[in-house]
Formats: sequence, C-alpha cells, structure tokens
Amino acid sequence: MRTITTEELDALIEQKRYAAIKQALSQEYAVDLAQLLEEQPYERIVPLFRLLPKGLAADTFLEMGTDLQERLILGFSDSEMRALVGEMYVDDTVDLIEEMPAGVVKKIIASADPAMRNDINEILKYPKDSAGSVMTTEYIALRAAMTLSEAFDKIRRVGTDSETIYTCYVTVPGRKLVGVVTVKDLLLAKQDATVGELMETNLIVAHTDENKEEVSNRIREYGLMALPVVDKDGLLVGIVTVDDAFDIISEESEEDFSKMAATAPTETTYTKTSVFTLFKARFPWLLLLTLSATFTGAIISSFEEKLAACAVLIGFIPMLMNSGGNSGAQASVAVIRGLSLGDLVPKDALRVLLKEIAVGGICGVLLALCNALKMLLVDRLLFANPDVTVWVILVVSLTLALTVLMAKAVGCLLPFLAKLVRLDPAVMAAPVISTLVDAMSLLIYFGFAVSFLHL
Amino acid sequence: MRTITTEELDALIEQKRYAAIKQALSQEYAVDLAQLLEEQPYERIVPLFRLLPKGLAADTFLEMGTDLQERLILGFSDSEMRALVGEMYVDDTVDLIEEMPAGVVKKIIASADPAMRNDINEILKYPKDSAGSVMTTEYIALRAAMTLSEAFDKIRRVGTDSETIYTCYVTVPGRKLVGVVTVKDLLLAKQDATVGELMETNLIVAHTDENKEEVSNRIREYGLMALPVVDKDGLLVGIVTVDDAFDIISEESEEDFSKMAATAPTETTYTKTSVFTLFKARFPWLLLLTLSATFTGAIISSFEEKLAACAVLIGFIPMLMNSGGNSGAQASVAVIRGLSLGDLVPKDALRVLLKEIAVGGICGVLLALCNALKMLLVDRLLFANPDVTVWVILVVSLTLALTVLMAKAVGCLLPFLAKLVRLDPAVMAAPVISTLVDAMSLLIYFGFAVSFLHL
Repeated sequence: MRTITTEELDALIEQKRYAAIKQALSQEYAVDLAQLLEEQPYERIVPLFRLLPKGLAADTFLEMGTDLQERLILGFSDSEMRALVGEMYVDDTVDLIEEMPAGVVKKIIASADPAMRNDINEILKYPKDSAGSVMTTEYIALRAAMTLSEAFDKIRRVGTDSETIYTCYVTVPGRKLVGVVTVKDLLLAKQDATVGELMETNLIVAHTDENKEEVSNRIREYGLMALPVVDKDGLLVGIVTVDDAFDIISEESEEDFSKMAATAPTETTYTKTSVFTLFKARFPWLLLLTLSATFTGAIISSFEEKLAACAVLIGFIPMLMNSGGNSGAQASVAVIRGLSLGDLVPKDALRVLLKEIAVGGICGVLLALCNALKMLLVDRLLFANPDVTVWVILVVSLTLALTVLMAKAVGCLLPFLAKLVRLDPAVMAAPVISTLVDAMSLLIYFGFAVSFLHL
Repeated sequence: MRTITTEELDALIEQKRYAAIKQALSQEYAVDLAQLLEEQPYERIVPLFRLLPKGLAADTFLEMGTDLQERLILGFSDSEMRALVGEMYVDDTVDLIEEMPAGVVKKIIASADPAMRNDINEILKYPKDSAGSVMTTEYIALRAAMTLSEAFDKIRRVGTDSETIYTCYVTVPGRKLVGVVTVKDLLLAKQDATVGELMETNLIVAHTDENKEEVSNRIREYGLMALPVVDKDGLLVGIVTVDDAFDIISEESEEDFSKMAATAPTETTYTKTSVFTLFKARFPWLLLLTLSATFTGAIISSFEEKLAACAVLIGFIPMLMNSGGNSGAQASVAVIRGLSLGDLVPKDALRVLLKEIAVGGICGVLLALCNALKMLLVDRLLFANPDVTVWVILVVSLTLALTVLMAKAVGCLLPFLAKLVRLDPAVMAAPVISTLVDAMSLLIYFGFAVSFLHL
C-alpha cells in the first residue's frame, strides 16, 4: 500500500528534505511509485527518480506509461541508461523495446551489456505474440547429479538475477531439458537426495512459436509458477512466469472486451483515460459502422414502396434485426473466446459450423413458434390489428427462424475467417456481425414478403 | 503433458493390468487425469480413481465437472470421503461445497476433521464473492525473532499442508500480521539474519469483505505470489494465492464475455459443451430480447401511417438504431469492466456520466456531420433521390447526434444502476442496452420527423 501521500511528498519537496524523500520512496512498491511520480510535474520526475534504489528504480520505470518512459529515456545519460537496463530482466526489456520508436530502441540496446544484447536480439527474432517473444532467459538451471546443498548453492548464487527461483530447470550439457524441480521439493526433501531423484520428468512445456495466450492458459490450468520454453530440438531457451502469464491473459481479455464493444483498446484504466483519448478510440468504429449501415438502408429503400403498401411489416424490422444480431453475437463471442483460449483452432471450423447450425435450428424454430403465438395473442386478439393476417405472422416467423439460423452460421464462421487472413478474430464481434446480419435478415424478410404476400 | 492415451488405457484395462495402470496414472497431472477419467464410462471411473495416490486423487477430483463430483461423492464410503477431504485445502473444499446440493454438502462436512470443519464454517460465513470466501487458512506463520534455521524448520514442518510455502507471514501472538517474508529472501540472506530483519513491513493486504476480483487484481498489479487476508482488527485469517487469483480473474472475464453476448455462462469450454447445453444457455436470453423488441415494434406501428406517407424515413431506421446500440455498448462495456476491475465504484456515477456526455457530444456532432455529408453526396447527388430533402437530412442527422449522446448516457448509467440493486453490471451489456436505446432513438426520430416534416 502507498505509505506517502502526494501532499506529504509535495511538502517534503518544498522543504528540500531529500534524505527523508529518499527514505520514504524506498518504502513504496513500484506500482505505487509509478503512479506517485506520474502525478508530479515532469521537471520533478527525473530528480525524484534518481533518489530511488537501482532495483526499485527499474521496476518503477517498467510500471510507467509509455509516453513518460520515452521522455525519460531520451533525457537519461548513458550511465543512467546502463544502470537502468542492467537492473531489468530480458523479457521486460524486450516488452519495452516493442513499445518504443526506433531512436529510443537504439539507445536501450546500446545500454545493454553484450550478453544481454545477444539475448534481446534472440527474443526479438520470435514472432509477435509467440511464447518466444514473451519469455525471459533468466532462470536457474541445475544438473540431475547435484546434491541438495549444491543445488541451494547454485540458487543462492544466481538467485538475485533470476525472475523466479522457485522452479528450477534440470538440463544436460547442451541445454536439453530433462526435468523440473521446485524449491518446495528441495526444501522438504531428505538431506541426502539428489536433484535427479526429486525432479518431475513429465514436463509441461511451451514451444517458442506457440501463441502466448495459449501458453499463459497452460500455466493457469496446471497451476504452475513458471513454464519452460523449448525450441524445436527440445533445448531450453527461456521461461514464462505466472505473473507474466497473468498479465498477458488480463491484457488480452481487456483488448477483446474493447473490440467487442467496437472500441480501440486504451492503455490505461477508464478513470485515467481522457475524453479525447476515449473519443479517438471510439469514433472511427462508430463512423465505420454508421456508414456501413448505408447498405441496410439501401435494401430498405429499394423496398420502400412495397413497405408503404403493407406498412404493418415495418414494425417487425427492429425485432428481426435484433434477434439476428444477438444470435450472431452469441455464436461469434463463443468462437472468439474459444480461439483466444486455444480451445478452438482453424481446422475446427466445419465442426463448429455444424454445432451452431444445430443450436441455431432449435433456437430459430422455438423462437419462431413463440413469436407466432405472441403475434396471434397480442397483435391479433388483444389489439385486434386487422393488418396482422395469418400470412403476415407466417412471413415474420419464418424470417425469424431463418435469420437466427443464418446469424449463428455467419457469427461462428467470421472469426475463423479473420484468423485465416491473420486479423484478430475479436474484430468480428457483435457490431461487425450485426451489420452484416442486418442486411441478410432484411433480404430474407423481403423475399418471404414478396412470395407469400404477393407484394 | 498426458503420457498415456485413452486407447492405451483401454488396452491396459482389457488386459486387467492394474499395476501398470496405477503406475501410468500416477505419472499424470491432475488436470489431465480428470479429462482422462471423464472420457471413461462411469462404472470404470471409481475403480480407476481408487488406483490413484491420495494427494493426486484429491487434486484430480477437484478438476472434474460438478456432475461427476456429485455422483462420486454419493458413491464414496465414509472412509474414502475422509481420505479425500483430508487431502483437500480448505478453500478448495469450500468451493466444492458451494457447488453441491445440501445432501452432498452434509456428507462433505461430516468427512472433515474438527479443525477443518471449523475453518470451513468460518469461511462459509463470509459473503459470496468476498476475499474471505475464497481464501485458504493453510499458510505458514513465522515470528519476527526466528533465526533462518528456525524459519526453515517451521517451513519444512508445515510445508506439505500449506497451499504456498514461498510467502510466509510474520505475526505476533494473537495473530496480528506484522510482516511478510519470502523464501527467496530467506534463501538469499546472510546466515545470521532473523526473520524480523528480512521481512517487508509495507504490507499489501486484502480485507475479508473485499470483492474477490479486486483482490485478485491487486495480486496481479503487485506481482505477488499470495496476499494475506485480514479481518477488521488486522488479524491474519487467511491467504489468497496467485493461482487462485488467476482462476478467479479468468472465470469472471469469461462470465462477463458470456453476459455481453447475452448467453448464460457455461461450465466447460465450447468444444466440451453440448448442443443442448448451448441451447439452454442462449435461448432464454434470445426469447427475452425478441419479446422485448415488441415495444420497439409498437412505437413503429403507432407511427405506421405517417411512415407510409414519408417512406424515405424507413430506410434510416436501422442506421439510427445501430449507431445508438454501438454507442451505448461502448459506454456500458467501459463501465462494466471498470466496475469489475475495481477502477470504478458506484459513487463515480456522476463523474462518469459527465465524461460520457462529453465523449457522446463530440462523437454525436461529428457523426451527424459525416452523415449529413454522406446523405447529401450519395443519396441526393449520386442517386438523385428527390425524397431526401434538406429537411429529411436535418431530421436524420439531428436524431443521430441526440441518439449517440443519449445512448452514451444510458449505457454508462445502467451498469451502475445494476450494481446498486445488487445485480451483476454485466447483464446491462450491449443486448439489453440496445433494446432500450432502440426504443428511445425511434421516439427521438419520430419526434423530430413530426416537428420538421409536419407529418
């Protein structure tokens, strides 16, 4: 928890009590410090940042927004940069690099020592969103023949530079992974045990080119602290830790939520996002969807005279479009999440289509029956509307059944299609689907109207 | 990873090679075993389950679906139940109890030893979805005066029964929490250090009545392995571990995704969910939304004759409804996620409303201008549609601006309202909002049409 308030910090700064500030800041957590610093005017941030202990400074830096990070990097001296980058883990450095413009990236890489620079370059070679691109290369490797005390010596020696010490990786020369052992296993074992006797050999691993969300979900499913990442030869190249997996899943979920609401993702929480940023994230989608509704409008316009002649049909347009939109959204969200969580892969498309046709068929027929009953009881009997003939009830109900079925099929197929053309399936969420389904449901409606009502 | 396939297991069962089966199953992870067993016919599950080592059996049991869990519990003998419950952590037992019907709950509680039964009853007293209801009471407590070797002795002694050993809690008599210390700190410390010298005293804690999602997000933000839960007197009553937090956030996100797609959440992945289960989850919402569109229909019907007289207005209905629905969804999803993540609380409602009115105002005016331009260029000039008069353009564009503004206001307020009446804000997602916004946008449209077009 934050122990110093912004007001207390301001007071200390006024009084130039730097030792007290240094002492106070060093008690805080990195997340809180980043927030505290971001609330300060820029000219105060660098001097305050310099008061932080090196490790905490690096952690705090990583919690800041990208704009401030960029500004700070450009302002830092070479030796300050070396100190900062030296305290950062390789995976965090890579994350940072991926957010920064080219000039800043150069400065970051130049500040890394040769071994780290090499690791950074290796990780940058892996495809975006792959396990390789999010792993860190700083882990503890043990040998099977090690005794407990040898293992603990190694852990103590490289522990401060490893992202997690609690899961250790047992390799043979050449870095081939043969087992994992936890510090819990080591601590609870008998004194004369060797690492080889304690290690688990049924390994849960990730491959460098696997999707980062799938890998993060594997960590969650198996309840792991970290997952080893191996290359195609089974050689250990890095690890993904549970805290990174947790962040990856949370970020991806929030991005999917944004896309489903037809909003571009924003970097910060709602409270911290400005009106202008919200506008920028939302307006392009709204404009696109509003303009694309032109097609729906054109379909109605082409049928305008006939609708004017049988005006009772107009009243059912919103119901038909909404039912189609909602049915499509149900199917598309199920497929989008399935693809995100690794439950579905592109080759499942046909199987999913058949399932959705079954669900859509049952839902469509039952909805149509309920709707026919409602029109009969409410519109015809209760309100005695003479325009709601049996034929009108038939046209509306048949359209409803077919629209629901069609919407399910379109809704489940479009995310697969997006995946095929390497778009994020989540862009095929409710708003896009409903724009398409609207047009199709109107065509079905008017088709049936022409056939049965002889318009 | 699974090392035995279903076919290999079937072959071993045919050959009655129980020792080999026992050996093979003991190599598997609990998640995989649960899947393997669920694929077997029921009469085989119990005998196979009995072959598992006790700890693995309990973990496997916890990974099964609730239907199978219930069936197994009803079939187990008292001694089997005691063995099973004895291996489970208190928080997992409470989770299980919350899913089971009363008769089964009685059998579970009767199988717990008195100390555990006491802990279970304590946890069951906390409100649903609170930190208290998801915590476990099995943690390692140390004293500040302990030396390293005393601390490690304690860890070794109670380690097997604790859900995590990597974060230990430092208390004074009476269970007041004064610090936390990690096994990493202890391992990397100098030999003569005491726990009190190593412990962190700036504590990140949860209170028993805090929402479980907020607490889980706190674990993620601070990158913790576990979070202590304290009561109102600051006494340590339990902990929430990172793996549980990860599960909580994932489950809550998936539930929110379901609700946003107007689907009841399903227990399993899409692939494992049957057509009938999908139907049951989706149909009630579809029916509700379809029937509620009756109101929209009624509004149009009451305006039917006037629409027939000025048929050009009909074509813009879908565009206006969609823009309203999408604008409302953007605002509601932002607020729903803000409430879920603890970024927003009910008293923020007014501040959020003002922000959304600002965003909605800018978006609405700009969209209306774009739309007016499009109608002028496309409908009037390109298609030379004589019905699209300047007054029609004015009516449509004004409606668009006002609809977007109104949709943002409604969209951001309804989730707060849901929270106030203790409903899940996520039920106020796109489908519900758009049904309401549809009706309001039509009233605005027809209101302007009557005023400006003198219908």
